[in-house]
Amino acid sequence: MPKISVKGEALPDSPIRKLSPYADAAKAKGINVYHLNIGQPDIKAPEQALEVVRNNRLDLLPYGSSEGSLDYRKALAGYYAKHNIDLQPEQIIVTTGASEALAFTLNSICDAGDEIIIPEPFYANYNGFAAAASVQVVPVVSLFDDQFKLPQLSSIAEKITQKTRAILLCNPSNPTGYLYTKEEITALGALALEHDLYLIVDEVYREFIHVPEMEHFSVLELPELQEHAIMIDSVSKRYSMCGARVGAMVTRNKDVLATALKFAHLRLSPATYALMASEAALGAPDSYLESVVKEYTARKNTLVNALEKIDGVRVSNPTGAFYCMVELPVNDAEDFAKWLLTDFQDNNETVMFAPAAGFYSTPGYGKKEVRIGFVLNEQKLKRAAEILEIALKAYPNS
Amino acid sequence: MPKISVKGEALPDSPIRKLSPYADAAKAKGINVYHLNIGQPDIKAPEQALEVVRNNRLDLLPYGSSEGSLDYRKALAGYYAKHNIDLQPEQIIVTTGASEALAFTLNSICDAGDEIIIPEPFYANYNGFAAAASVQVVPVVSLFDDQFKLPQLSSIAEKITQKTRAILLCNPSNPTGYLYTKEEITALGALALEHDLYLIVDEVYREFIHVPEMEHFSVLELPELQEHAIMIDSVSKRYSMCGARVGAMVTRNKDVLATALKFAHLRLSPATYALMASEAALGAPDSYLESVVKEYTARKNTLVNALEKIDGVRVSNPTGAFYCMVELPVNDAEDFAKWLLTDFQDNNETVMFAPAAGFYSTPGYGKKEVRIGFVLNEQKLKRAAEILEIALKAYPNS
Repeated sequence: MPKISVKGEALPDSPIRKLSPYADAAKAKGINVYHLNIGQPDIKAPEQALEVVRNNRLDLLPYGSSEGSLDYRKALAGYYAKHNIDLQPEQIIVTTGASEALAFTLNSICDAGDEIIIPEPFYANYNGFAAAASVQVVPVVSLFDDQFKLPQLSSIAEKITQKTRAILLCNPSNPTGYLYTKEEITALGALALEHDLYLIVDEVYREFIHVPEMEHFSVLELPELQEHAIMIDSVSKRYSMCGARVGAMVTRNKDVLATALKFAHLRLSPATYALMASEAALGAPDSYLESVVKEYTARKNTLVNALEKIDGVRVSNPTGAFYCMVELPVNDAEDFAKWLLTDFQDNNETVMFAPAAGFYSTPGYGKKEVRIGFVLNEQKLKRAAEILEIALKAYPNS
Repeated sequence: MPKISVKGEALPDSPIRKLSPYADAAKAKGINVYHLNIGQPDIKAPEQALEVVRNNRLDLLPYGSSEGSLDYRKALAGYYAKHNIDLQPEQIIVTTGASEALAFTLNSICDAGDEIIIPEPFYANYNGFAAAASVQVVPVVSLFDDQFKLPQLSSIAEKITQKTRAILLCNPSNPTGYLYTKEEITALGALALEHDLYLIVDEVYREFIHVPEMEHFSVLELPELQEHAIMIDSVSKRYSMCGARVGAMVTRNKDVLATALKFAHLRLSPATYALMASEAALGAPDSYLESVVKEYTARKNTLVNALEKIDGVRVSNPTGAFYCMVELPVNDAEDFAKWLLTDFQDNNETVMFAPAAGFYSTPGYGKKEVRIGFVLNEQKLKRAAEILEIALKAYPNS
């Protein structure tokens, strides 16, 4: 029997999707499952994006430019300019989702055995992209008690070795909902510069800010990081177009761009229809995103309020993105999340969470925590919180 | 200045796309360029595929299943059954193009430093996917004089080391157009089995056979290779849907499937619209593919006839796919291909070829060769051959 790769065997299952077979079984029994485990928006995509695809007159699907069409990259540069990020189209490589932007980045700057420092909890798939490139993830713990703010710089600095290539951050954070401040990004930038490391920031949730007096600060707004800053982006969450699989890798470092472009040539091009939709989405009026963010903020308030009322439950108060971390009065949140699907129902309904241990890479961390996405409407979120409260009372292993 | 990865720096530029800036410059001067460098079909996609996207009523683009919907995989199993390949839907993972199927395969079976044996010339991007996974490509030369048939088994066997994980083939071959026979695939299968190696076959050109008495023989038709055979597929060429970016990785090895599925979870899902189109394409009548293949065969005959008449030009006579290898009476085919774009025109027209050296990994091989794709109609192919003849006479460095 031929062998499986060591890195493939070591690759952890997605904590977001690993309980899916149990959810499928529950649904097969006629149980309604509230999916709070995934970051799948339920809000309508911009009409412009949907219409351009319906009205397309293509009679075959050609390859596009590997780096994305100049028109789309020009339009993207215009979008970034509205966020105080001054870019040329040549500094943008359009990718197949943020996933591929991250893969291109890691492959362009890391060889097998190199290390990347990431504050944890972090988006679980970072582990996987690192594993695919045989890169080691070095976690630095950020704390629930601190709302998951940036760990002390000294605790990051002490992890830097000769093999460290980059520090990676998601801002605002999936899974914590924490919006890193201008001060934090600036301090991290200085550290990266001091040690000649890349600072990679996944900014796909840029638009989702729930505190009116707070603003997103992009890593590309740091002028001293011309060669060191790499930004990851995607249309998935912004326009409810997760299935488009269109993202971007953005940097002013010409060598990184030239190298990433070689990887982009390899996979030929992003998907044609999805590119049409993504370009058209940029033509949506500002009111589209304003109303989307307003809706998520209302949901966040409803969810956090409802959860805070449950005995023994602690909620992080997210300032951005559409997730919160929730500590439950159980010993093993994964066992509880599974039990919710296999052994529990209330009026034929249950809820599904992503167990948080998979978002940490330090063993033992996050065992009592789950990540909850507020991607359902307020009424459903209230009902989901109610189900959680009833379930916690019924759960035998707490 | 932070560093670029060693593998990224070493990654060769795509021979198919590397001359593109010169082509763009020629077009900017008003010169019409016949693109024989790329494998971009110009034939209409199935109407069913185009219509299903135009008629879609989605109001957002959700993630799909990481492995592709069960419906689509069932339909694909039905398609393979028509080609004598007996499969269950669980043995198919739908991917973002054949590119991703190959990346999943390499990541699932290889660690950094492992080796893959590939007969050369081979599809240049195999180099890149191997480099991305820090895997070493070990070439075995196949010869123009033999129409690029499978090299002697002994010359393959002698390349096998402790680090060899797989033998990789494209059948019919891009770039040579050679259709490997049942006997060759069977012999290679026995060798793979003997050394407990995977046999990976890229079969995206399965339908394109130009000799009526020849049939494609899939690696999945070898019953003894249950654990060892991995097939790569794509809708790109079959349905003129290169821009869909929908492919598949197919194997009966459960461990490989389970590992590849973890990599599939990482990148979430293939693109929604493209999946709709791909599934609908399977509903096209048999007459669609019959007429497409007939057209390519006619083009092949026209092109080969025209090229054979040119002094000093040798053409491989492709039995499959839509490429041929052509030896030119020049010392450096890349210099000639570049010169065609920068310094030549005939009645304001020129042609673009892919220099073949990039399809070899043994230094010095293929220097006089180019790959030509017959993806233009017969009239254009005749004119392209005429331009080549005139250009060869005018070329100063031959």
